[in-house]
Amino acid sequence: MPQISQKGQMMPESPIRKLVPFADAAKARGIKVYHLNIGQPDIETPEIALNAVRNFSGNVVEYSHSAGILSYRKKLCSYYETVGINITPDDIIVGTGASEAILFAMQSTMDEGDEIIIPEPFYANYNGFAINSGIKVVPIPSFIEDGFALPPIAEFEKAITNKTKAILLCNPNNPTGYLYSREELEVVKEIVLKHDLFLISDEVYREFVYDGHEHFSVMNLDGLENHVILIDSVSKRYSACGFRIGAMISRNKEVMSTAMKFAQARLSPPTFGQIAAEAAIDTAESYFVKVMDEYLQRRNIVYQKINAIEGAFCPNPKGAFYAVARLPIDNSDKFCRWMLEEFEFEGATVMMAPATGFYATKGRGMDEVRISYVLNVNDLSKSMDVLKEALKVYPGRK
Amino acid sequence: MPQISQKGQMMPESPIRKLVPFADAAKARGIKVYHLNIGQPDIETPEIALNAVRNFSGNVVEYSHSAGILSYRKKLCSYYETVGINITPDDIIVGTGASEAILFAMQSTMDEGDEIIIPEPFYANYNGFAINSGIKVVPIPSFIEDGFALPPIAEFEKAITNKTKAILLCNPNNPTGYLYSREELEVVKEIVLKHDLFLISDEVYREFVYDGHEHFSVMNLDGLENHVILIDSVSKRYSACGFRIGAMISRNKEVMSTAMKFAQARLSPPTFGQIAAEAAIDTAESYFVKVMDEYLQRRNIVYQKINAIEGAFCPNPKGAFYAVARLPIDNSDKFCRWMLEEFEFEGATVMMAPATGFYATKGRGMDEVRISYVLNVNDLSKSMDVLKEALKVYPGRK
Repeated sequence: MPQISQKGQMMPESPIRKLVPFADAAKARGIKVYHLNIGQPDIETPEIALNAVRNFSGNVVEYSHSAGILSYRKKLCSYYETVGINITPDDIIVGTGASEAILFAMQSTMDEGDEIIIPEPFYANYNGFAINSGIKVVPIPSFIEDGFALPPIAEFEKAITNKTKAILLCNPNNPTGYLYSREELEVVKEIVLKHDLFLISDEVYREFVYDGHEHFSVMNLDGLENHVILIDSVSKRYSACGFRIGAMISRNKEVMSTAMKFAQARLSPPTFGQIAAEAAIDTAESYFVKVMDEYLQRRNIVYQKINAIEGAFCPNPKGAFYAVARLPIDNSDKFCRWMLEEFEFEGATVMMAPATGFYATKGRGMDEVRISYVLNVNDLSKSMDVLKEALKVYPGRK
Repeated sequence: MPQISQKGQMMPESPIRKLVPFADAAKARGIKVYHLNIGQPDIETPEIALNAVRNFSGNVVEYSHSAGILSYRKKLCSYYETVGINITPDDIIVGTGASEAILFAMQSTMDEGDEIIIPEPFYANYNGFAINSGIKVVPIPSFIEDGFALPPIAEFEKAITNKTKAILLCNPNNPTGYLYSREELEVVKEIVLKHDLFLISDEVYREFVYDGHEHFSVMNLDGLENHVILIDSVSKRYSACGFRIGAMISRNKEVMSTAMKFAQARLSPPTFGQIAAEAAIDTAESYFVKVMDEYLQRRNIVYQKINAIEGAFCPNPKGAFYAVARLPIDNSDKFCRWMLEEFEFEGATVMMAPATGFYATKGRGMDEVRISYVLNVNDLSKSMDVLKEALKVYPGRK
């Protein structure tokens, strides 16, 4: 029997998926499982987007342009204008989700053995995309004590080698909910220029920003036109994860023409998803007002209820819909599994993501979990109560 | 300015796309361009598939399972049963087109520097997927004189090194239209077993088989359960290229669990496309009868009209909707460009794909073009007349 690839052996299992069988077993026992483990929002996809697909009047569902339907890319430019980013349709390659856009960005800029610096904890799938692309993730630490702020410049300098090709940021951050400030990004800019690196910025949670903070995009860092690659997605903005529509955006012509060769090889992004995403750009402002209000309430519940638990701590997330919480536990993998296998409170339990999966450094995140606040206020509040009760009786409590 | 990747520099430009600007210029001059250059059929997508999306009744378009919606994978099993292939939903990972399925197959089985043997001419994007995956394509020659039949076993043996991990076949073949017989595949089986290789078979044109020939799938080669990976797509079967729905199929559990890690990293294939593809499985038999009849007529026109041109030759394609024709020309790249830039007959010209792009061996395919017979009988017939006239006056005629 022929052997699978070493690359395949190295690919990590999703830190979330490995708990799925235990959640399924809990459900089979009749237990209500609150899912705070994934970034699948319960918010409705805008009707205007769904209707665009429902009203599809073509006879043949054709390949689109490899960079995405031109009318969609034009309309995307108008969307970006509303968030202060000025680009042209040629600066955009529509990807099959941000996932594909990240792969395009990595493959266009990095070769086997090259290194990418990412502050940890970070979105676990970056690991998979890096292994897929043959590149090495070099983590630099951010800490829960200061809300997971940008690591100091010295940490970047320590991590840089002659193999370093890029820095990857997620802003607002998944899993921490941290929002990098303009000042922090200006610091990153200096490092990027000094070492002539690419700066890849995953800004799929751009709209999810609280307490009057403002999101500042790396696209607006002057003088980085040839360094910045923006990763985007419609999945979270319109609660449209199943569209599988994202984008890779850059003003660097060479990067874009290189990425286009990868895009052409796979022919095109999904046509229906693009049609829906194009229509979604006309979503009424009232939709977002309502959604943001809902997420703000949820964020407040998580922040307040976690911090009210003895021995637990959670920084106040400024963006996205995640929080990393420190809990008085020995081992977050064990704890999250125990919650599903052995605990229930009033017939319910909670599924969370152990934070270990978001750290590249072994041993970090052992007493932290990621909470996705993607449930309605009532369910979320109950989940927090269940968590509180669980921590009272968890055998590995510290 | 940071440098793009070597991988990106190596990525080939699509042999078809580089002619697009010349086609656009011809259209701008008011010339009708018959597109025989791409595999985008003009056939209507089945109404039943379109209606499934038009009737979408959900409120949230969610991620699907990373391997694809379970009900779709179950239904796919019933489809495969009708074509004599017995599999379970666990043997299937739904991909974003065959493109992604090929990437999953390569990445799960091969590492940087590994080699894959492919009879040439072959589908040009295999090159891109191989470069993307860091693997080396080792071409072995097939020839127009014998209709591009399977190269003799000695050619495979000559090409095999200690780096060889797989053989890739496309059956029926794009670009040649050749249909490998069961006997030929039994020969491949012996090589695969002798050298313990993977056999990746791209069978997306399974239904497009003419003259009473029958398609034999590698899935039915006994004893190759752990070696065979089937690549499939709904793009051609249902004229649904824009769905971006394909599949990677294997009975090798280790390969599938490895591929699942790549699939999980990118979350899921497109939801709308899967909904449409699931419904498409119920397409009435009459649709296929009509479509096959149409393609048969088209194939006959191409075959007869090309062979009626002095100095031209085209084997009779047994499957798919492509033919590779030998023309009395000096250079197919020059000729195809000349057709767009300098020639017209009664206000029209023809866009074809130079066959050079389908050969990995430099210098092969110089007097060959690929013709996709994706236009209606009238347009196709006119295209052939235009081609005939062009060959009368082409300055590089041999």
